[in-house]
Amino acid sequence: MLTRYLDDCREAVQQEILRILPSDRRHTGGLYELMLDYPLRYGKMLRPALAIGVCGAFGGGLANVLPTAAALELYHNAFLIHDDVEDLSSLRRAEATLHQLHGAATAINVGDAMLAVTMEPLLDNMALIGLGRTLRILRIVARMARESAEGQMLELRWIATADWSQRDADYSRLVHKKTGWYSFLAPVMAGAAVAGLDDRAVGRIGRLFAPLGVAFQIQDDILNLAADRSGYGYSGYGKDACGDLWEGKHTLILIHTLRMADPEERRLALAILRKPHPAAAGQFAVAVERDSRSNAEVRAGAAAKTEKEIAFLRDLILRRGGVDYARRTAARYARRFQQGIRATINPLPASDHRDFLAELADFVINRQL
Amino acid sequence: MLTRYLDDCREAVQQEILRILPSDRRHTGGLYELMLDYPLRYGKMLRPALAIGVCGAFGGGLANVLPTAAALELYHNAFLIHDDVEDLSSLRRAEATLHQLHGAATAINVGDAMLAVTMEPLLDNMALIGLGRTLRILRIVARMARESAEGQMLELRWIATADWSQRDADYSRLVHKKTGWYSFLAPVMAGAAVAGLDDRAVGRIGRLFAPLGVAFQIQDDILNLAADRSGYGYSGYGKDACGDLWEGKHTLILIHTLRMADPEERRLALAILRKPHPAAAGQFAVAVERDSRSNAEVRAGAAAKTEKEIAFLRDLILRRGGVDYARRTAARYARRFQQGIRATINPLPASDHRDFLAELADFVINRQL
Repeated sequence: MLTRYLDDCREAVQQEILRILPSDRRHTGGLYELMLDYPLRYGKMLRPALAIGVCGAFGGGLANVLPTAAALELYHNAFLIHDDVEDLSSLRRAEATLHQLHGAATAINVGDAMLAVTMEPLLDNMALIGLGRTLRILRIVARMARESAEGQMLELRWIATADWSQRDADYSRLVHKKTGWYSFLAPVMAGAAVAGLDDRAVGRIGRLFAPLGVAFQIQDDILNLAADRSGYGYSGYGKDACGDLWEGKHTLILIHTLRMADPEERRLALAILRKPHPAAAGQFAVAVERDSRSNAEVRAGAAAKTEKEIAFLRDLILRRGGVDYARRTAARYARRFQQGIRATINPLPASDHRDFLAELADFVINRQL
Repeated sequence: MLTRYLDDCREAVQQEILRILPSDRRHTGGLYELMLDYPLRYGKMLRPALAIGVCGAFGGGLANVLPTAAALELYHNAFLIHDDVEDLSSLRRAEATLHQLHGAATAINVGDAMLAVTMEPLLDNMALIGLGRTLRILRIVARMARESAEGQMLELRWIATADWSQRDADYSRLVHKKTGWYSFLAPVMAGAAVAGLDDRAVGRIGRLFAPLGVAFQIQDDILNLAADRSGYGYSGYGKDACGDLWEGKHTLILIHTLRMADPEERRLALAILRKPHPAAAGQFAVAVERDSRSNAEVRAGAAAKTEKEIAFLRDLILRRGGVDYARRTAARYARRFQQGIRATINPLPASDHRDFLAELADFVINRQL
């Protein structure tokens, strides 16, 4: 049922993306073909579906929310393009990343162009849903873009300083900013705004979904690790398997594992995590990864992480129960969301939209994609 | 006089930038300190000055235009940060580029964050100048961001395909999109919108400044070439000297030079221009420069451009009159602008703002910065 809902949303949103991109594409160097690459690959389409689902559950019409939903999906894809460059990722949605295909210069610019073209449908909302809702949505999108960049910066800083002193609450706060805002809060708040809810009610809906954002990121971390035991390379998962370990990302899994490790394991693990990504070899890559190499030990010329070292980290995680702990924590966040959403949507008229929202918690923590 | 005007604008705009950045900077990994790096380096501040100048000349108040002017300067700096990564530049405003200092991942994200935070002052315009002007400015900024990205993409494509068949009109169209829109059209249109001009009048002001945008970019190309005979490295100019030649950029200077060159010179020059940037060595750099290396000859393993080859291109340009031709063309565009602006501002009351606009044409084609 939920899968069908996502499929329907995917079709409608992909059509809408094709509609809102500029039709005059002369003298643009093929920009719009590149811009359509990621959005037309098979993705969950979770973010626009959240906007459509909340809008529909509160009685808003599909036509009114589609441009906003499509703009949010374009925003998401712009972030993905830039993230992939920043993380040196080679796979996205089971195909080569945009910078692998066309170079980082082009990829950075395509991402910028996507951020730019999202503004026009959000301004065109004026004629569709009026001034008040249009401005409310623009405010939400501005906040979303800022929160995401702040979260991304904080994560880069943790990696750069090789700081592993985070507690669970630090992790939750990071992923709330980095993932929660643009994957959950902004879509559901925008959907609620389209449906005509006022600022207070829109804010309440956003806060309701915050725990689901944390659960979603934890499940993402688990999938990243479980994708393919062979480590670096292709997997059905569609992204670089164990990419988080290669990048030295601060997942809850690793934070807990390091907390439970004995001193010698911890020392070894930290030494590995501080080493650079293998793709960071070469002149330009030094600049890309300079932050993560500013650590004295690495600057002294330590080699990049190896397959064997990643295998050590994976085994340590399994031995110290990092994945189980993360799974339990995700389930707790999902339950908290489930209680809140039930109370909120029970009074609403029955609809596919309401059913979609009711099934979300299960989907988020059990998904394999 | 004009210099004093720019200095006054710089001070006011830098203060305004400090005011509009978020004051709650907890959990942002030092993002806002990095965001302030480029804007607080010494730059011309031409773009916000254009917004302030046009607004003032038409009777608008400084307080009403300052947030918009500051947002435009932040946009400009975000473009610079991303451009520097894309072009592998090492110098900006006479200091190391942001990606050289902090890595490309951080630089890309700081640029994204700057694009995000510009939205909030533009939405806050509501309370300052009302709905109509606020929306007009948002439309201008959306168009500007799209035109810039389209122009940038077209230029990357020309480099990628090693296509040197452009005529002067192709160059003018490119720089109108790549530079003209965000450096001239958007600032003066936004300034006119703040002053209360209607859509038609705002559009007329924009078109009036279009030729000045082309003149500006041609002068920029000339300065890039003249900066330092030693080529690659530091110069008083503040950017990588001869960076355009190292990057193989399609300047009017080179387009004309190749047109006037004899067949053998042309063949040699094209072979050099197709070689990669020396900073493009190394694994990740291959991805950055893949577009410009997709040319078969280069893919076969040709070495990067050398100092000697850049010297050959410079001598060829001098011999074939590329710089003189560009200078004459810039002067012609500047004269066209001068005639238009005179007719437009003569009826306006005398003011420092009007004087600034009257002096612009001379400044643009004679500037050394």
